[in-house]
Amino acid sequence: MATFTSLAVRDVRFPTSRDLDGSDAMNPDPDYSAAYVELRTSDEEAGFGLVFTIGRGNDVQAAAIQALAPHVLDRDVEGVLGDLGAFSRALIEDSQLRWLGPEKGVMHMAIGALVNAAWDLRARREDKPLWLLLAELAPEEIVDLVDFRYLTDALTRQEALEILRRAEPGKAERIAALRTRGIPAYTTTPGWLGYSDEKLAQLLVEARAEGFAMVKLKVGGDVEDDVRRMAIARRVLGEDVPIAMDANQRWDVDEAIAWLQRLAPYRPAWIEEPTSPDDVLAHAAIRKAVAPLPVATGEQVQNRIIAKQLMQAGAIDVFQLDAARVGGVNENIAILLLAAKFEIPVCPHAGGVGLCELVQHYAFFDAAAVSAEHPRRYIEYVDHLHEHFETPVSILDGAYQAPMTAGSGARIHPSTVDSHLYPTGPVWTEEIHVPVA
Amino acid sequence: MATFTSLAVRDVRFPTSRDLDGSDAMNPDPDYSAAYVELRTSDEEAGFGLVFTIGRGNDVQAAAIQALAPHVLDRDVEGVLGDLGAFSRALIEDSQLRWLGPEKGVMHMAIGALVNAAWDLRARREDKPLWLLLAELAPEEIVDLVDFRYLTDALTRQEALEILRRAEPGKAERIAALRTRGIPAYTTTPGWLGYSDEKLAQLLVEARAEGFAMVKLKVGGDVEDDVRRMAIARRVLGEDVPIAMDANQRWDVDEAIAWLQRLAPYRPAWIEEPTSPDDVLAHAAIRKAVAPLPVATGEQVQNRIIAKQLMQAGAIDVFQLDAARVGGVNENIAILLLAAKFEIPVCPHAGGVGLCELVQHYAFFDAAAVSAEHPRRYIEYVDHLHEHFETPVSILDGAYQAPMTAGSGARIHPSTVDSHLYPTGPVWTEEIHVPVA
Repeated sequence: MATFTSLAVRDVRFPTSRDLDGSDAMNPDPDYSAAYVELRTSDEEAGFGLVFTIGRGNDVQAAAIQALAPHVLDRDVEGVLGDLGAFSRALIEDSQLRWLGPEKGVMHMAIGALVNAAWDLRARREDKPLWLLLAELAPEEIVDLVDFRYLTDALTRQEALEILRRAEPGKAERIAALRTRGIPAYTTTPGWLGYSDEKLAQLLVEARAEGFAMVKLKVGGDVEDDVRRMAIARRVLGEDVPIAMDANQRWDVDEAIAWLQRLAPYRPAWIEEPTSPDDVLAHAAIRKAVAPLPVATGEQVQNRIIAKQLMQAGAIDVFQLDAARVGGVNENIAILLLAAKFEIPVCPHAGGVGLCELVQHYAFFDAAAVSAEHPRRYIEYVDHLHEHFETPVSILDGAYQAPMTAGSGARIHPSTVDSHLYPTGPVWTEEIHVPVA
Repeated sequence: MATFTSLAVRDVRFPTSRDLDGSDAMNPDPDYSAAYVELRTSDEEAGFGLVFTIGRGNDVQAAAIQALAPHVLDRDVEGVLGDLGAFSRALIEDSQLRWLGPEKGVMHMAIGALVNAAWDLRARREDKPLWLLLAELAPEEIVDLVDFRYLTDALTRQEALEILRRAEPGKAERIAALRTRGIPAYTTTPGWLGYSDEKLAQLLVEARAEGFAMVKLKVGGDVEDDVRRMAIARRVLGEDVPIAMDANQRWDVDEAIAWLQRLAPYRPAWIEEPTSPDDVLAHAAIRKAVAPLPVATGEQVQNRIIAKQLMQAGAIDVFQLDAARVGGVNENIAILLLAAKFEIPVCPHAGGVGLCELVQHYAFFDAAAVSAEHPRRYIEYVDHLHEHFETPVSILDGAYQAPMTAGSGARIHPSTVDSHLYPTGPVWTEEIHVPVA
């Protein structure tokens, strides 16, 4: 019987703040980081997972993952991987750890990373990419993965089953089509606040040439800057290319409405994170006031309970699922099912370290087996740090290509882990200026 | 110029699970714990703060507080203490750390503990109990402490000022009256799920004899048990003593409504935490369905943003502020002001380690300078672990007596810290069976 023999957690950081890549209205100087998990077995197999952070506190996040070791060490690998619904619930229901959330923040993201590492291992053992492994499960197996606690006023197990059964016919054909065509990407690479107008215009031209279906600009620093940058983007891209905007939680309700009235003439595709991700009622008020401008959020939505309320309250038009914010694969399946119930498209958040590699699996699974085809499904794309991953994303003609390598995409090259270890790796001790794009 | 010279954080745990003290429907075996902060200066002064946890993960919580050290070490003590609004905002706006919440969970509670330690130091230096220090500030000074970000759709700075100015007349008289009469306590000591019917009845008799204004029973484990226990409580206490109930987040919406229909005949004073503290809409739905049974929550409400929505949505009748869950004194002042605006009484949550010692300051400040007199203001009381504090609460005839010692109440006896250090202190290495009540 194989057992889990080690849970190694490493504090890996990239000095991205040196170049202002990734700067936005709330995050002026991120050092993209990963609290990186390697879960190993007595058969010398391994699963990988991570929590994405932006620098300070990555060590706290790593300590939180390490605190979960007693839940997995010495346990039977087959037993854990054979019932990942039970594994996820046991972590979330650890009553002493639950006090530290509950189901939110550092401890919840830690659970997500460990759950995801277990899924990564299972996908490797079954020699399938995570999305295909999930898509080929029976509807009953999928609902068994979901914790319906606090969801049943919006989505019951039976309703979830019906959603999945509705998607069964045509699933094989959709999987084949997804493997041929991929899923459209939009790019945030041009839109960081730290870039000059010239760099913005040049990157927009490049984005169009690369075939991206949409671009996104950061806003919320200064309204006159935002108006000028949106005007540049419209001039460069013309009237037909969708341009999304992302305020990174910068505003209160009245401020959001006034600011968006200045930007509405540029017909943004959506306004992302206009205010706190915790504020369901504020999103609803903003959405009502700026209609028909669509409202999006999700990358920092802490769990399925807030996601549910955003949908129940009619507060959003688009949900931006993140792979490393909530309690892992299982909770993200719950969110995909909620979104299908409320007919809200899921356009995953990506960027950072490894998020592109991770989130694509949810979009492909969603398209194959949950909400099926959707004309407005995009996956965010940022051209950062992919070279550090064992299976970097593949973008062709502005579309994510279906990942076909076994696993979840989370594995970082061992040499990168060593060189970027904080604070002892050479990238940090030698203050090397590393180009990241 | 005095500077901050050390931030020591200690993992202090009490083995309360050995006796089932503190057991409820969601927390069957808590080891009451504190991530305990000592903030020291070059003048050999010190301020104390803590995050209350229930065991595992207390080390993660301690690491999170330690991660804040660069925000305070070597800084000018007068500068920090003279503008604690700016200090609190700087911690919350550390963009890299903010990613780990934002404003929730382990990192946010860490900020709260450090902010509270700074307030404790300031109160010691001014030789005042925290509540009196706050109550004697001018309204303008108090609103300067508050971060109004994400609040202005419900409460503006100007509205907060007006609330405080309305309470100015009669403040001195109220302070005098509070020092004479105290604030009524209710006791949760009889109501833990782990106790037998006989122990419940006996503790209820003792509670009445001690003069408590209200008692609270834990519910949500088994409905037949709850009916039987409520019947015992009514039989022992008669028809006129208020009996509150606490479900510790056990239910979904439909389950809560059905369960509460069984318990309504015993006329509970409120139902506390019927469901997830994140679920504003579920609380609103439950409250509507079980009216006129009042709904309470707050001890695990993560920040002022969720508190605001619970009030905006008409989801609660009572807010149960906690001293060690949100971002410290400053955010709790915001919550008190919100509650005053929405005319919702604040009945602080206590128990655990040191929460009674801490929360009383908010209730006395609220009564003196914010919402003023209120006939339904109670402070929770649990008779656990007070002997370990430098200034334990004083309960007389069922009322909290106004604390008049300088500080916030957070200081634990050094000998207790040493003996309860986890995992190396003698309480843990020697497996001593320590009575805690």
